[in-house]
Amino acid sequence: MKIAIDAMGGDHAPEAIVEGSLLARSQCSADLVLVGDEKPIREVLGRYPDASSVEVVHTAEAITMEEAGPIAIRLKRSASICLAMRLLADGGADAVVSAGNSSATVAASKNMVGLFPGLRRPVLAVPFPTQNGKPVMLDAGAHPEAHTVHLAQSAALAHVFLKVTEGLARPRIGLLNIGQEPGKGTRAICRAFALLNRSSLNFVGNVEPLALFAGATDAVVCEGFVGNVVVKMYEGFSESLLADLKARMEDSRPGECGGLGRVFDGFHQKYHYLSVGGAPLVGVAKPVVVAHGRSERTAIASAVVLAARLAEERIPQRMGEELEKDSALADFKHYNAVLILEKLKKRWRFS
Amino acid sequence: MKIAIDAMGGDHAPEAIVEGSLLARSQCSADLVLVGDEKPIREVLGRYPDASSVEVVHTAEAITMEEAGPIAIRLKRSASICLAMRLLADGGADAVVSAGNSSATVAASKNMVGLFPGLRRPVLAVPFPTQNGKPVMLDAGAHPEAHTVHLAQSAALAHVFLKVTEGLARPRIGLLNIGQEPGKGTRAICRAFALLNRSSLNFVGNVEPLALFAGATDAVVCEGFVGNVVVKMYEGFSESLLADLKARMEDSRPGECGGLGRVFDGFHQKYHYLSVGGAPLVGVAKPVVVAHGRSERTAIASAVVLAARLAEERIPQRMGEELEKDSALADFKHYNAVLILEKLKKRWRFS
Repeated sequence: MKIAIDAMGGDHAPEAIVEGSLLARSQCSADLVLVGDEKPIREVLGRYPDASSVEVVHTAEAITMEEAGPIAIRLKRSASICLAMRLLADGGADAVVSAGNSSATVAASKNMVGLFPGLRRPVLAVPFPTQNGKPVMLDAGAHPEAHTVHLAQSAALAHVFLKVTEGLARPRIGLLNIGQEPGKGTRAICRAFALLNRSSLNFVGNVEPLALFAGATDAVVCEGFVGNVVVKMYEGFSESLLADLKARMEDSRPGECGGLGRVFDGFHQKYHYLSVGGAPLVGVAKPVVVAHGRSERTAIASAVVLAARLAEERIPQRMGEELEKDSALADFKHYNAVLILEKLKKRWRFS
Repeated sequence: MKIAIDAMGGDHAPEAIVEGSLLARSQCSADLVLVGDEKPIREVLGRYPDASSVEVVHTAEAITMEEAGPIAIRLKRSASICLAMRLLADGGADAVVSAGNSSATVAASKNMVGLFPGLRRPVLAVPFPTQNGKPVMLDAGAHPEAHTVHLAQSAALAHVFLKVTEGLARPRIGLLNIGQEPGKGTRAICRAFALLNRSSLNFVGNVEPLALFAGATDAVVCEGFVGNVVVKMYEGFSESLLADLKARMEDSRPGECGGLGRVFDGFHQKYHYLSVGGAPLVGVAKPVVVAHGRSERTAIASAVVLAARLAEERIPQRMGEELEKDSALADFKHYNAVLILEKLKKRWRFS
């Protein structure tokens, strides 16, 4: 099994990417293909005695964080992320990992590798650690805005994703919202509620953040902007709360806090988003993992291990098979057409 | 000074509302006017010996949580929230507090009391406790969706709000976003960035959640859906994290956790959103406070105290004066017209 890694993507590229990839080899049996500028990559590899067998695909081009993904992949056809995706598409690799410009990764995976038939967009799926389970949040940032069909299709993706990865027969899917009633939230969410209510999914309705923490659902659907803000808030919350609590404890019982270090460490590891490493780009026909741009080498290592697991267990392929059986994606297209027709009839005063 | 309170609004109305209002009397010198169904209100008042002097304005109508606010206030003209707003508008009260249907409160305040000249919408302003200060987040849920002008006007409101309440000469205003670069986020946010960049405000650009926790800004602007999700997440986060940490500590050092109770309590009080009690509806020409629907009596008491403070310090009136001097609201209208014109020119290929 081969994992293609975009060695030029991320704030600490290529050093952290190369080191993280090497670190991952002890946790999984994948072969690595590092895609990027060969000279600095070989320089980092040279520091490790057992790294001479690692394959490197050279390219001088890379897409920066500031570029608009869909345009950049057309202008820079030999950028590291494009070559990595091309490898995945042609069978030269079994999975791709990138910590680079995520809009470029999304666009390249859609154009080069392809999505499930009938699907409009892939989404980032991030597990959300709480006291009562780990609901998956999607979209966590692949696309900032979402229309009705995008939200409904995300729900169908969540359904097959949890079926395949967690073995749940009928995972509970909710819509992240600011109230439980059907009329709450943005217009896209109200319409998605109507679509999902008619579907064959186990739709539990609108889920308020508090209910999410209480374990009301296995997956929660939202637009990418909201999901990304929430995930990043999580990071900030846990760090800020923990630092504050530590300071308070030290004030209250000087000298005693040291012994609690282990508790804090375990706590931090559970809630710290970075330790997750990467999120699968769900909806692409083959395994793609998007890592946080800020990723250090341990986060990159977890992202590579995740990619290896997705490839080994054939998660995207099995999701595709489930989706075909299910016809949920096609149903949403049909239902949405019906909704639009109803709206137009009303506007034109047809009866 | 008189505070009109919508006694029929909220999950625990009228009991918690009446009791909370009475509780507030020990913390501020305001006179109370309870608006709602007189019989149950008098019943609760009867339990307190010193409560006979409280004024009650009777009405049998009330707006429920499920109704659409803007329609409900037209159909139920003598609903408790409408009568309370009418009192405020006519000078019979100096502030209004409601824990009821917030869209009805927003619509009633806009229609009956009125907004600052040139302003399209009021917003909910909620302080966001972090280790490094307490940035104000707006809109925290008055309207789920926001266009460019709404976001820009919220920034102008944040400017005068912090100027008047915190005495900051040039408060730092940011846009809540998922990246720092100007092109990030939704289209409305990208356009608002352009508007704010040309304005006279102290605009610090896009603020990522992590930067918010690091104290990068005094106020952060977002659409109501995002703000409301974030505020409610805060509630869930702090409760869930704290419960988890407590359990871990008890596992690690049985019997020792009791002594830390005081630390946890203080911590909880700082981060627990409910203890805030209520948020000012910023942009209305007179003081209006929206309380959480779930509010228990202590939260209602804080909301009433907040309303009394807003009225006593003439916060809305002083904000109105600052806005007139500033002309920021009018500027945004002008800039937005320019932006739209530029876009149309481009589409029609004018030069």
